[in-house]
Amino acid sequence: MTIDYLHTMVRVTDLDESLEFYCGKLGLVEISRKDVEKGRFTLVFLAGPGDTESAKINKAPMLELTYNWPDEQGNIEEYGEGRNFGHLAYRVDNIYETCQALMDAGITISRPPRDGYMAFIRSPDNISIELLQRGDAMPPQEPWASMENTGKW
Amino acid sequence: MTIDYLHTMVRVTDLDESLEFYCGKLGLVEISRKDVEKGRFTLVFLAGPGDTESAKINKAPMLELTYNWPDEQGNIEEYGEGRNFGHLAYRVDNIYETCQALMDAGITISRPPRDGYMAFIRSPDNISIELLQRGDAMPPQEPWASMENTGKW
Repeated sequence: MTIDYLHTMVRVTDLDESLEFYCGKLGLVEISRKDVEKGRFTLVFLAGPGDTESAKINKAPMLELTYNWPDEQGNIEEYGEGRNFGHLAYRVDNIYETCQALMDAGITISRPPRDGYMAFIRSPDNISIELLQRGDAMPPQEPWASMENTGKW
Repeated sequence: MTIDYLHTMVRVTDLDESLEFYCGKLGLVEISRKDVEKGRFTLVFLAGPGDTESAKINKAPMLELTYNWPDEQGNIEEYGEGRNFGHLAYRVDNIYETCQALMDAGITISRPPRDGYMAFIRSPDNISIELLQRGDAMPPQEPWASMENTGKW
């Protein structure tokens, strides 16, 4: 008997805003989408651009976004956060360029990559996301080296 | 620029109990472990048995367990749960055999595989875990077909 990792699911309160964050800003790719009218929810599966082909045949674990549609009064459930879940981690080619692009797009770098290796940001629904430099740490570089933390992550 | 999914991190209050759950009962494999004396924490990375070789070279996303050591008074932080994180999903070869083995090991099947396809359990720290049948759903089968839900997941 074996067991394969398929995906991590997070709930989102605004699907468009989340897709803008995960795809538009972080660079993930939408692999599939399912609207379930009866259950009033939409599932969207995302993978990194290098994993799109294997993700389509369920050979690369994905991020699943669950969007529960508003109720008849137009209300959306508020999703609190807990500490038993920690974060999602992604590797990037150049952590300084990624963080600069995210900042330019209005994302707060909660934990700047002072060490040239690790940064943290948060999704619109406060999912903590760790960004890690591919390979070895980059040499420390301003403005990152002296940038302070913002909030928690 | 690309972005690769590396891991999902969850915090655990009892590392031995969690390893017994994730490895001993679910069948994941420990890929690497790091004890950080200065920060007083231990990180353990887990992957499915079919992904151990690729996980070792960071080519297969893993589950990271973070165990923060007790403080000087022996206290462990309590980790609450939130709804913005949903679940981890794993695919299994035979969902009935997996659920039976988990039940025999004392795990509550929160959402039994009545449909021969999907079940939910929870980790010792209340991380929701979805188990999905590989390929098509199995034919409905007792005792699963008439087994009711237990708690939430």
